Amino acid sequence: MALVVQKYGGTSVKSPERIRAVARRVAAARARGDDLVVVVSAMGDTTDKLLALACQVTASDRPGGSHPREMDMLLTAGERISMALVAMAIREAGAEALSFTGSQAAIITDGTHTAARIVQVRADRVKEELARGRVVIVAGFQGVSRAKEITTLGRGGSDTTAVALAAALKADRCEIYTDVDGIFTADPRRVPGARVIPEISHVEMLELASSGAQVMHARAVEIGARFGVDIRVLSSFVEDDADGEPRGTLITPTPRRMEELVVTGIASSRGQAKLILNGLPAGLRSATTVLGALSDSGISVDMITEAECGPGRVQIHLTIQAEALPHARRVAEETARVLGADGEVTTREELSRIALVGTGMGGRPGVYARAFRALLAEDVEVHAVSTSSISITLLVPTEREEDALRALHAAFLDSRPADAAAVVPAGA
Amino acid sequence: MALVVQKYGGTSVKSPERIRAVARRVAAARARGDDLVVVVSAMGDTTDKLLALACQVTASDRPGGSHPREMDMLLTAGERISMALVAMAIREAGAEALSFTGSQAAIITDGTHTAARIVQVRADRVKEELARGRVVIVAGFQGVSRAKEITTLGRGGSDTTAVALAAALKADRCEIYTDVDGIFTADPRRVPGARVIPEISHVEMLELASSGAQVMHARAVEIGARFGVDIRVLSSFVEDDADGEPRGTLITPTPRRMEELVVTGIASSRGQAKLILNGLPAGLRSATTVLGALSDSGISVDMITEAECGPGRVQIHLTIQAEALPHARRVAEETARVLGADGEVTTREELSRIALVGTGMGGRPGVYARAFRALLAEDVEVHAVSTSSISITLLVPTEREEDALRALHAAFLDSRPADAAAVVPAGA
Repeated sequence: MALVVQKYGGTSVKSPERIRAVARRVAAARARGDDLVVVVSAMGDTTDKLLALACQVTASDRPGGSHPREMDMLLTAGERISMALVAMAIREAGAEALSFTGSQAAIITDGTHTAARIVQVRADRVKEELARGRVVIVAGFQGVSRAKEITTLGRGGSDTTAVALAAALKADRCEIYTDVDGIFTADPRRVPGARVIPEISHVEMLELASSGAQVMHARAVEIGARFGVDIRVLSSFVEDDADGEPRGTLITPTPRRMEELVVTGIASSRGQAKLILNGLPAGLRSATTVLGALSDSGISVDMITEAECGPGRVQIHLTIQAEALPHARRVAEETARVLGADGEVTTREELSRIALVGTGMGGRPGVYARAFRALLAEDVEVHAVSTSSISITLLVPTEREEDALRALHAAFLDSRPADAAAVVPAGA
Repeated sequence: MALVVQKYGGTSVKSPERIRAVARRVAAARARGDDLVVVVSAMGDTTDKLLALACQVTASDRPGGSHPREMDMLLTAGERISMALVAMAIREAGAEALSFTGSQAAIITDGTHTAARIVQVRADRVKEELARGRVVIVAGFQGVSRAKEITTLGRGGSDTTAVALAAALKADRCEIYTDVDGIFTADPRRVPGARVIPEISHVEMLELASSGAQVMHARAVEIGARFGVDIRVLSSFVEDDADGEPRGTLITPTPRRMEELVVTGIASSRGQAKLILNGLPAGLRSATTVLGALSDSGISVDMITEAECGPGRVQIHLTIQAEALPHARRVAEETARVLGADGEVTTREELSRIALVGTGMGGRPGVYARAFRALLAEDVEVHAVSTSSISITLLVPTEREEDALRALHAAFLDSRPADAAAVVPAGA
């Protein structure tokens, strides 16, 4: 039968009852003949509680900064607890099972504590135990460096463990169980018309994840893309259909689409800011000097636009993370002074970044106009725009983010897909 | 300077505040120039909480029975949390520190999950880090088998880790920090006159620990005795004296005594029972058959006495743990039948075992008489007595245990030691 890697997130194993539900699902799949590797996160808010303890003990709010090695030691206790409990529950549900730490499963990482990258998955012991007919539970989020130090993978770590294991084991599929029904066309808590995307490509998923869609982490999707791993994202709170109808969202290199959608999904993120450098000398040197200075200070710039304003002078707009704004502002002011600017550096905060994602938009310039028209109709100001072959990114005031999401979802994704698709060429 | 192994129990690291107090103590010792290895237990009731989770997940009250490997995985998360937090706190207190799991510290055990025995302590990484001037924190209670499986040492595991490390590192001393002031002459919650014993030999401590004194576990003392490790038991809740006056109890091969005490300490344990086989045929065969049958059934017998009762018939009294009584009774009845007994098997429950311990009592037969006289004066019935070169053990009704403890403490240990010692020869 199939070799399947299943990953269960923190909410899926948050209580003994949830763990037993996971165990029943796993044991049922094993009884159908599948070989199973189960990757687990820490239970519910365990990681937050451990972090809080570390803050109290060190009297600091970022203990991982001063004590990265010990922070990894601490946090890896979380998955150790859940993996042992899940293994017990699966054994109680009638399947043979045993658990492995990241180290025992040979998830080899670099030595960067609290944000290690996987360099190799050997998984020999995992393969041995699978060959004996056992379900193997593996702690997510953790690995071991070549110097035998315990490491953690940082955000999205358990998803990354699961997809990396699926790639290393050449699994038939990787199932990411979570607390929502799949990847939605937009955040369903904020956009009433949002619905589950049945199939999506890795590159679209990557763009959505990088743009704020929180269900699946970009790092894991990246590995999936590199190794062509089919990833299904689905809810652990719903019983599997008796007729085996697939649920959730399949992330696959070649998604099948019921209709030719232009936009596959919309994601957004708050906490954006804009930096405007006025009165810089025109010419390439201004932009490169500003970008160079910001980059040297460790500040990432998202979008950049240059506008002429007056003779021989330009205005440069940069969008950055709001948390970097005070630092970025100082750097920009210093650079503007050096460049001989005759204007101020101004800023704009409380902005949100909205991304429309879809491989279908590449050949369709009308998408851009259509998005603008939808926002104009709602009176939403647009502070910046950038486009790529699979996305359009817009910066809007955070107070209007929700209105913008709904307007864009209505224009591209509300469920009259045939109509919507028909309208696009007209708007183009 | 000195190489010191310090062990902190669960109550000593139960909260961030307690952990920071431990860190201050460790950093101060390091600043004085000592090399330090710090062994920690899990925080407060962490182990109980993890056990409760396992019970819920498996819907059983002894999950370690069916899932010993996973139980070890689960429980070792407890020390992983405390050791990382203690390492962070020590670093915050200004000393270099890092933590090792039992596996990283190379505490090699046999493969008996939940009750492994240490077979070797290699501690090469511990030595390396000490040589670099770092405080090394080691998870207590846990080890790793030669097959690289994670194991736990069972009851008293963290004390055992500490003493085994002290032996392997040839440490100058091993300090066991706990929530009481040291080893008492009797349980101070029950015997008002009880006081801390300044020095005690390993063999006396072993006898007290085996007889119910709970501060220090017998296994750890055993290792200490075998390797001649000086162990100091003291409170982590008391600040060290500025003048460096030693606190607590020193367990040492050659204790110095201020006065020639006969009895060093008294310990007791409940849950004892007595089994009386009546009317067995006289002769060696009866006792050996009974003991053989009980031993084959896995039942340990503590004391045994044989009394003649009628022509050619004997009565055999056995004391055992009360929890083994139903099983032991069936075995005894079957054996009595086979031996052709003409009497019943009777039992007595609700008994307590009191041990008077002291290397000083060896050459003094009067101790025995004096203990009896003290109990007689209080009208406490004695159900059995046994003696060894360093102890007298008495079985009394549990409802009179406290009266017996006080009477015996008054007779041997209340603080007029000179008088008490003087009386003994007179009573002999």
